[in-house]
Amino acid sequence: MKNAIKITSLILFIFFTLTSCNQKSKLEINETDPLPSWNEVESKKEIVAYVNDVTNTESENFIPIKERIATFDNDGNLWSEQPAYFQLFFAIDRVKAMAIDHPEWKDQQPFKAVLEDDMEELKKQGEHGLIQLVMATHAGNTTEEFKAYVKDWIATTKHPTKNVSYDKLVYQPMLELLQYLRANDFKTYIVSGGGVDFMRAFVTEIYGIPEEQILGSRIKTKFEYNNGNPKIVRVAELDFIDDKDGKPLNIQKIIGKKPVFSSGNSDGDLQMMQWTASNKYKSFMLYVHHTDSIREWAYDRNSHIGKLDKGLDQANKDGWTVIDMENDWKVIYPFELIKN
Amino acid sequence: MKNAIKITSLILFIFFTLTSCNQKSKLEINETDPLPSWNEVESKKEIVAYVNDVTNTESENFIPIKERIATFDNDGNLWSEQPAYFQLFFAIDRVKAMAIDHPEWKDQQPFKAVLEDDMEELKKQGEHGLIQLVMATHAGNTTEEFKAYVKDWIATTKHPTKNVSYDKLVYQPMLELLQYLRANDFKTYIVSGGGVDFMRAFVTEIYGIPEEQILGSRIKTKFEYNNGNPKIVRVAELDFIDDKDGKPLNIQKIIGKKPVFSSGNSDGDLQMMQWTASNKYKSFMLYVHHTDSIREWAYDRNSHIGKLDKGLDQANKDGWTVIDMENDWKVIYPFELIKN
Repeated sequence: MKNAIKITSLILFIFFTLTSCNQKSKLEINETDPLPSWNEVESKKEIVAYVNDVTNTESENFIPIKERIATFDNDGNLWSEQPAYFQLFFAIDRVKAMAIDHPEWKDQQPFKAVLEDDMEELKKQGEHGLIQLVMATHAGNTTEEFKAYVKDWIATTKHPTKNVSYDKLVYQPMLELLQYLRANDFKTYIVSGGGVDFMRAFVTEIYGIPEEQILGSRIKTKFEYNNGNPKIVRVAELDFIDDKDGKPLNIQKIIGKKPVFSSGNSDGDLQMMQWTASNKYKSFMLYVHHTDSIREWAYDRNSHIGKLDKGLDQANKDGWTVIDMENDWKVIYPFELIKN
Repeated sequence: MKNAIKITSLILFIFFTLTSCNQKSKLEINETDPLPSWNEVESKKEIVAYVNDVTNTESENFIPIKERIATFDNDGNLWSEQPAYFQLFFAIDRVKAMAIDHPEWKDQQPFKAVLEDDMEELKKQGEHGLIQLVMATHAGNTTEEFKAYVKDWIATTKHPTKNVSYDKLVYQPMLELLQYLRANDFKTYIVSGGGVDFMRAFVTEIYGIPEEQILGSRIKTKFEYNNGNPKIVRVAELDFIDDKDGKPLNIQKIIGKKPVFSSGNSDGDLQMMQWTASNKYKSFMLYVHHTDSIREWAYDRNSHIGKLDKGLDQANKDGWTVIDMENDWKVIYPFELIKN
């Protein structure tokens, strides 16, 4: 039973285990319009009204600066997550890069399927195969080595259908929202099911969020003194799954404060939203609803990745703010700004 | 074997599991002397020379602000830890407060020993007894309830020999050092073997360190939706021991950056020091050596609590800075300032 939970968790970890991007869009806050890539829609009005209210010292809803904790999911919330979590593409590409040192993989599943680009066979390998992929590619190296692998991958690899590097697939309107909140003294955090060390390797510059404000899933590590050149080695064993219940738990463990603002896009973010909604200060819960099949992807209640079902029900019931991507956002990605 | 390690770890957790104080000494940095409670000794000169060097943009040792991570042990480093870690006194006092709801404890060890103030018998109960005490007093409540217990305890309880509340037993020279580093754009963290939620309940105001910059040991937690009034419940099972190897591991997990400045007082801090010493930026390792048997306590190589043996050897060998408390500090506690 315990193992079953672990396996299920690992799968969630893999599926929910993706991350970010590398577009240095140094936005200046536009004083008259802090969210220029948003249409004049309800979601935008609600965000601006909330920020104006809770930062107004005259308001009964004023929130002291040190309590202005804002937590953002990453996959499907700050960058895209289709046709699979981008971290899975990283694992696949790592297998290919590592294959030269692993001749045995040519005849060993799930590696054989990856090396032969046989996605049907890879699917057949199921949960167990995915675990093997993640552990083979994410563990057995030092924190420094792993960081270098991710940095190299993000700099050299393109998304299979969008044909731009993965870090270009961040959401321009969300970059503006992060900037807007920080300009109003909110401390912005990422709280993602994706791997924390995967994200830390490259998202800080894109989102303006320092390493210490990135929370995610992680594998175990061990410290080796190594004759005066100490290293931290990544071990092929799960340490924490930062998804569902794990999100409020990790927020409490690491931040130690309840957020006043949370943003997500799937049922995996629901407990974080519920926790935020229970803040004694006025709080704001924001769901990104993927409705744009042309510019991005359209999916919700029945999606394998980024399923939004219970979360949408609770958002409707409790009056949380829901972004309709197709209708609410003028552009999705920063590179559309350049085209325009 | 695994259990033996867990038990040993728990004991370390208990012994190393203490914390802080409540003296609001709002120090202004004295421009001519940033460390006024320090004598003009080598340790002080080395600290000031280091800070001047790494904050000087003209220096080859200049450190960018975002990399100025400074990590401090708590027990025996920022406040006293004798005759036992203060968190153990909290556990003992909690048992007494909870006894009314636990009539069975009158006949049940180790609770019986605590209720009868029979410290000899409590010692005989050994590791297993200590584990029972910690779990009975630290788990089975919500994060909010636990915080309230700690806050109440620190406000109403006095140290057994110093006869002041525990939060008065912080080190004035270390408060000045924390302030001095922050004035030079270092981000100050606590990285303690003590319980993170115990510390967060009251140390923020004393040290000027927000909740999210406090790392420590912790027990497991679970999230309960509770019909729209979600709570996080503390579970009687160890989650992480933030001591020895655990310190660099927790720093990497939570901060994701290697410190440039670390301060501790025992062998439990040695791995954090070693990790810091391996920074590519110029780093500073500072040991507090308890040499003052009159104003505080004198102990090092053979001490049961706060043993400093291997750490002292490595400090001497590698030229790390060692504070001689008796000689280097004009005052130990803030209340001595008022007397003077």
